[in-house]
Amino acid sequence: VERPRHQGMAKNTYMRWRLPLVCLLWEVAMIVLFGVFVRFGAEADAHWEEEKREMNLTSDIENDFYFRYPSFQDVHVMIFVGFGFLMTFLKRYGFGAVGFNFLLAAFGIQWALLMQGWFHSFKDGKIFIGVENLINADFCVGSVCIAFGAILGKTSPIQLLVMTLFQVTLFSVNEYILLNLLHVKDAGGSMTIHTFGAYFGLTVTRVLYRPNLEQSKDKQGSVYHSDLFAMIGTLYLWMYWPSFNSAISDHGDAQHRSAINTYCSLAACVLTTMAFSSMLQKKGKLDMVHIQNATLAGGVAVGTSAEMMLTPYGSLIVGSISGIVSTVGYVYFTPFLESRLHIQDTCGIHNLHAMPGLIGGIVGAITAAAATEDVYGKEGFIKAFDFTGVYQTRTPSVQGGFQAAGIMVSLLMAFVGGAIVGGILKLPIWGDAAAENCFEDGVYWEVPEDEESDVYHMHNPDKPASP
Amino acid sequence: VERPRHQGMAKNTYMRWRLPLVCLLWEVAMIVLFGVFVRFGAEADAHWEEEKREMNLTSDIENDFYFRYPSFQDVHVMIFVGFGFLMTFLKRYGFGAVGFNFLLAAFGIQWALLMQGWFHSFKDGKIFIGVENLINADFCVGSVCIAFGAILGKTSPIQLLVMTLFQVTLFSVNEYILLNLLHVKDAGGSMTIHTFGAYFGLTVTRVLYRPNLEQSKDKQGSVYHSDLFAMIGTLYLWMYWPSFNSAISDHGDAQHRSAINTYCSLAACVLTTMAFSSMLQKKGKLDMVHIQNATLAGGVAVGTSAEMMLTPYGSLIVGSISGIVSTVGYVYFTPFLESRLHIQDTCGIHNLHAMPGLIGGIVGAITAAAATEDVYGKEGFIKAFDFTGVYQTRTPSVQGGFQAAGIMVSLLMAFVGGAIVGGILKLPIWGDAAAENCFEDGVYWEVPEDEESDVYHMHNPDKPASP
Amino acid sequence: VERPRHQGMAKNTYMRWRLPLVCLLWEVAMIVLFGVFVRFGAEADAHWEEEKREMNLTSDIENDFYFRYPSFQDVHVMIFVGFGFLMTFLKRYGFGAVGFNFLLAAFGIQWALLMQGWFHSFKDGKIFIGVENLINADFCVGSVCIAFGAILGKTSPIQLLVMTLFQVTLFSVNEYILLNLLHVKDAGGSMTIHTFGAYFGLTVTRVLYRPNLEQSKDKQGSVYHSDLFAMIGTLYLWMYWPSFNSAISDHGDAQHRSAINTYCSLAACVLTTMAFSSMLQKKGKLDMVHIQNATLAGGVAVGTSAEMMLTPYGSLIVGSISGIVSTVGYVYFTPFLESRLHIQDTCGIHNLHAMPGLIGGIVGAITAAAATEDVYGKEGFIKAFDFTGVYQTRTPSVQGGFQAAGIMVSLLMAFVGGAIVGGILKLPIWGDAAAENCFEDGVYWEVPEDEESDVYHMHNPDKPASP
Repeated sequence: VERPRHQGMAKNTYMRWRLPLVCLLWEVAMIVLFGVFVRFGAEADAHWEEEKREMNLTSDIENDFYFRYPSFQDVHVMIFVGFGFLMTFLKRYGFGAVGFNFLLAAFGIQWALLMQGWFHSFKDGKIFIGVENLINADFCVGSVCIAFGAILGKTSPIQLLVMTLFQVTLFSVNEYILLNLLHVKDAGGSMTIHTFGAYFGLTVTRVLYRPNLEQSKDKQGSVYHSDLFAMIGTLYLWMYWPSFNSAISDHGDAQHRSAINTYCSLAACVLTTMAFSSMLQKKGKLDMVHIQNATLAGGVAVGTSAEMMLTPYGSLIVGSISGIVSTVGYVYFTPFLESRLHIQDTCGIHNLHAMPGLIGGIVGAITAAAATEDVYGKEGFIKAFDFTGVYQTRTPSVQGGFQAAGIMVSLLMAFVGGAIVGGILKLPIWGDAAAENCFEDGVYWEVPEDEESDVYHMHNPDKPASP
Repeated sequence: VERPRHQGMAKNTYMRWRLPLVCLLWEVAMIVLFGVFVRFGAEADAHWEEEKREMNLTSDIENDFYFRYPSFQDVHVMIFVGFGFLMTFLKRYGFGAVGFNFLLAAFGIQWALLMQGWFHSFKDGKIFIGVENLINADFCVGSVCIAFGAILGKTSPIQLLVMTLFQVTLFSVNEYILLNLLHVKDAGGSMTIHTFGAYFGLTVTRVLYRPNLEQSKDKQGSVYHSDLFAMIGTLYLWMYWPSFNSAISDHGDAQHRSAINTYCSLAACVLTTMAFSSMLQKKGKLDMVHIQNATLAGGVAVGTSAEMMLTPYGSLIVGSISGIVSTVGYVYFTPFLESRLHIQDTCGIHNLHAMPGLIGGIVGAITAAAATEDVYGKEGFIKAFDFTGVYQTRTPSVQGGFQAAGIMVSLLMAFVGGAIVGGILKLPIWGDAAAENCFEDGVYWEVPEDEESDVYHMHNPDKPASP
Repeated sequence: VERPRHQGMAKNTYMRWRLPLVCLLWEVAMIVLFGVFVRFGAEADAHWEEEKREMNLTSDIENDFYFRYPSFQDVHVMIFVGFGFLMTFLKRYGFGAVGFNFLLAAFGIQWALLMQGWFHSFKDGKIFIGVENLINADFCVGSVCIAFGAILGKTSPIQLLVMTLFQVTLFSVNEYILLNLLHVKDAGGSMTIHTFGAYFGLTVTRVLYRPNLEQSKDKQGSVYHSDLFAMIGTLYLWMYWPSFNSAISDHGDAQHRSAINTYCSLAACVLTTMAFSSMLQKKGKLDMVHIQNATLAGGVAVGTSAEMMLTPYGSLIVGSISGIVSTVGYVYFTPFLESRLHIQDTCGIHNLHAMPGLIGGIVGAITAAAATEDVYGKEGFIKAFDFTGVYQTRTPSVQGGFQAAGIMVSLLMAFVGGAIVGGILKLPIWGDAAAENCFEDGVYWEVPEDEESDVYHMHNPDKPASP
C-alpha cells in the first residue's frame, strides 16, 4: 500500500542501483587498501610475547588494550547510540537518524583507519593498528556525525556516504596539521572534531540551502515518544563524555584528570541549561530541545583542556558558560541563521558543537598559555605538553599561540572543505528528496503501516485522511 | 495552543524566575566552593610522575583510575539512565522522570563532591578528588534518585533541588557516622544509600500527603511503550549492579567477590519475582510493575554483604527472599501504605529500596558477625573488615552489632531528616502542581502537540475532546 | 476490562500455579546445588593475599577481574538489553521479548555456572568461580537467547524455562567435546554458541510447527516505534561484539586482536547489508529487518577466528560476505524455510546466527589450518593454539581438521537435541497459546489499556472496533 506522494518534478529518490553500487564499490576499495596497508600493531600481534620481553614489560596488563579498551567502548557507544538516538527526535525520521548514522559511521571508521593510519601509524609501508587507532577512527567519524546533524532529513544516503569520504579525508589532514605540524594538544577534539565538524556541516547545509523547506515544516517537530528516544542519545553522550575526553590522553594522571574535568564541566552545564531554558521562555517551561542538546556543551567545551590542569572549578566555570551560550543559541541564533544566513541547521549543531567547540579551543589555548612548572611539576610539565625533541624550548605562551592557530586552521579547513563538498553534493545525481518529502523516512525506508502513521495522516491537514 | 487547565486556586507553577534563580545561585555557589576547596588528588595531578616514584609504583596501570573507572561508568549509567528511565513508566511524565532526574543528579554530584570531600578527602584545607570521589558522589545522588521515586510526579523541579541539597547533606553526615564513627562496612550502600534514601523519601512523601490525588488517577498508569522505556532503566540497573556493589570495594579479591555475589543474587531475584508476580494475580498474568522493580531487590539486599564471604549460594538465598518480599510489597503493602498511612509512593520505593535495604543491612550484620579467620584467612580477615589501628581488637560479633547499629542510625536520620525536609518542601513557595495536574509533563515542560496526546484527550473522560 | 478473546479449544494459558511452581522449584534446586558445589575461585576469595604471594604477583591489578570485567559487563548488556530489545520489533510482543528473555537468561546463567563448572572448574568436589565463569555463563545463555528468537511469540514462559534447562545442558556437553576433547579454538563461539544455538532453535521450531499461524499474521509485523526499540538491541549487540569475541581470549595480544578483527568485520558487514537490502527490493528502499539483524552477521562470522591472525582485511572480507549472505537469507531463505520446510523462524535466526555461524566455523578452520610459525612467531604459535602437553605435535592442518569436526559435532548436537527437546515442548501441558493468540502480550502479561491498543483494535479488521 504505497502512499501517494509527490516526489517533486526533478527528484528521483530511487536508490536501488545507486546505493548498492556506492556501498559495494567502497567496501571493495576498503578491502584492497586494508590488504595492502593494514597490519596488527605490536600489542595486537601474535609476536607480542617477544615484544613484551623487548619492551621489558612484566605483565600482560601493560598492554595498551587494558588502558584504553573501556574508554574505547564508551566512545563507540557515543558514536552509534549517542549520536544515532540523539537525532531520533523528529517524529518521522527515526529510521533515517539511527540507520544512516549507522551506515556512515560504519563506512567512515574504515576510511579513517586508513587516512589516520597513513598520517600517524605508517612504518615500512604498512599501517600498524591497535586500540588507539580504533578510538581515533571513532573520533574522526564523530565529526561526520556532527555534520550529519545539520543536514539531517534533507539528504540521501549516497550524499552522506560521499560527504563521509571527503570529510574523513579533510579531518585527517586538519588533524595532521594541528597535532604534528603545529604540535597542538587536543585530546578531546574541541578543535579537530567539534569546531571542524560543525563548521564543515554548517557550510555544507548553507550550500545545500532549500528555499522551500517550510513545505515539510509539519514533520520538523517531535512527538512525545520520539523525544524520549532522543534522551537515550543525550544521556549516553553525557555520561560517557568523560571517556571521550580521556580516551587518548597519556596513561595515568592525564586520563584520570581528563575524566574528572569533564565530569565537572558537564554537571555544571546541566544546571545553567535548565536555568536558561526556563528563563528564555515566556511561559517558563523547559524545552526538551535544550535539555537534549545544550546539556552536552560542557563536554565539548573542555575537549582541549580536560587533560590539562584546568582544575575542577575551572571546569565548572567553562561548563556553566557553555550551557548558557548553547541554550541562548537555540533560542536566538538558530532562527537568525536560518532566516538571515540561509543556514538550515536541523539539530542545531551550531549551538551544541560549533560555539562550544570554539570555546573549547580558546579555553585550551588559555590553559596552555597559563601553564607553569609549579602547577605541573617539572616532569609533568614536559609530559603534558610533549615539550621534547624540537619542541624542547617551546614556552607555554608560545604553545597558547599555536593552540589559537589550531582554531583558525580548523575553521579554514571547515569553510573551504565544506564549500567544495557542498558543491559536489549539490549535483543532481545523488537522489535527495524534494522539499515536501524531507524529514520523512518513507522516502528511503520501508515503513510499517502502523496505527501511529494512520493517526498521523488523520491529523495532517495537508493530506486527505485516506486515499 | 495552550490547553485549558485549572491550575488549582493557590497553585502557581510558573517557573520562569524561580527555577533559573535557584539553578544559577547554586551553580555560582558550587564554583566558589570548588575554587576554594577542590583540587586534583595525587593520582590525577600532573605531579603524578614524582608521586609514582615515591609510592614505588612500577607502572601507570597502578593508578586507581584503572581499578575503578569501568565501574564508575557503569554506576554513572545506573544513576542517569537507570533511575531516569525506570521512572518513565508513567504515560505522561517521561520528560519529568528523565529530565528532573538529570537535573537533580547533576546538581547533587557537585554538592556531594564537596560534602563527602570535607568528611573523607580533606587535607590541609583542601579536598583532593579522584575517581573514587566521583563514584561516591554518584552513590550519594543515588539515594536522592530513590527518594525522588516516592514523590515522582507530585513535586516541582525547585522542590527537587531543595530536597537534593538537604538530602545530600544528611546523607554525608549519616555516611560519616556509619563508616568513620561506627566503623561499619557498607560498600554497596544497603544502609547508607537504600535504607536511608528510601525511608527519607517515604517520610517526605508522607509529609507532602495529597488527599485529592485520585483526581489525577487516570495519569498514574502506564501505556504500552512507556513500559518498554522503563525496562531500559530496569535492565541497566540490573546489569550494572555488580559494578555498583563492587565499585569502591578494596582492590583485588573484594571487588571480584562483590561482583560475583551481586550477579548471583540478582539472577535468583528474577525467578522469585516472576513466580510471585504470577501467583499473586487472580488471572496469573505477569505484571510489568513487578518485573521493572522487584527484580532489582536482589542487588539492594546484598549491598552490604557482597564484598564479604557471603558465598554464591548465600547470595542466591538473599536474592530469592528479596524478590519475594518486594513483589509481595507491591501487591499488598503499597495500597496499605497509601490508604492507611497516607504514604503515596509513586514508584513503590518501599518495596524496591526500603525493605530490601533493611534486609541488606541485616544480612550484612549477620555475615560480619559470622566471619572467621578460617573462612577469610588471617590477612584477609583483617583486610576485609579493616581491623587495624584502634579497631585491631574488634571481634566479628561486635562488628555485627555495630553493623546493626548502622541500620538504626540510618533509619533515624531518614525519619528525622525526612520530616524536616518534608516540612520545608510543604511551604507554598516552590511551585508544585495542583492534584489534578500531577503526573503531567505539560505543567513544567513544553510538550509536543502530538497524535498520541490528541488521542489521549479523546479518550480522557474528564476533558472535552477538543477546545 | 478484559478483552474478549478466543483462547482456542484445547489451549489453557493460565499460568498462576504452573509458572510459580517451576520458577520456585528450580530456584530451590539452584540454591541446594550452589550450596553443595559452588565456591569463590582463588582470585575472588578472601585468601587472595596469600594466593598473590604464592603466584608471585606484584599487584592487585594482576587479578583476572581487571583483565575481563569490562568485557564481562559488555557481554552482560548484549544478553539482556541486546537480545531482549532486538526482539521487541513485534508490535504487541515487547513485554514478552524483553521480559521472557530476562527470565530465561536469569535462570540460564545459574544453571550454566553449574554445568560449565562441573566440566571446567571442578576441583576436589567443588566448583570454583571467577569472572571468566560469569562470562561463560552469559555466553551459554546467549545460545538460548538465539534459539528463543526462532520461537518468539509462540511459546509459554514455562516452555522457555524447560528449553533453557535442556539447552544449557546440551550446550555444556557440546562445549566440552569441542574445547576439551577436540581441542578446538572457539573463543567467540561461532560453533558453540551460534551454530549450535541457531540450529537447535530451528529444530525446536520445526517440531513445534503451527499450521494455522497465519491467524496471527496481523501481529507479526512491527510498528514505527517498536522498530526503534529493536534498534537499541541491534546497536548494543553491534557495538559490544568486539568485547564478546575477545572476552575469554588469552590476556594481552589475543584479546586485543580479537577486538580489532571483530570491529573491522562488523563495519564491513553494515555496508554490504545496506547494499543488498536496497538491491533486493523492487522499490530500492531499505528494510529495517535487515538493518536490525544482518548488520550483526559480521560479529558471528569471526567468532572463531577473531583471536587468530585473521588480519584486518581478512575480517573485512568475512564481514562483507556474511552481510550479503544474511540479507539474502532474509529475502529468499526465510520464506522458503517456512513454506517448504515448515520452519517458522520469527526473528530469522537462520540468517543472523545459523549461516554466519557456519561461515564462522569454516573461516576458523581455514585460518587455523593456514597458521604458520612465521606469522605467529614461535611462542605466539604455541600460545595461540595451545599446542602444549599432548597437543604439542599437532600441526595447523590437523587443527583445521579438528575445527571442521567441531562444526559437525555442533550441528549434530543441535539437530538431535533440538528434536528431543522440541518433542518435550510439544506436550500439551506447558500452556502455550492458540495460533490466533500468538505474538500477543495480553496472553501472559497485564497489558495497559492504552490509546495505542485502542487505536490498534480500531484498525484491526478481524475484530469489532469496540465491544
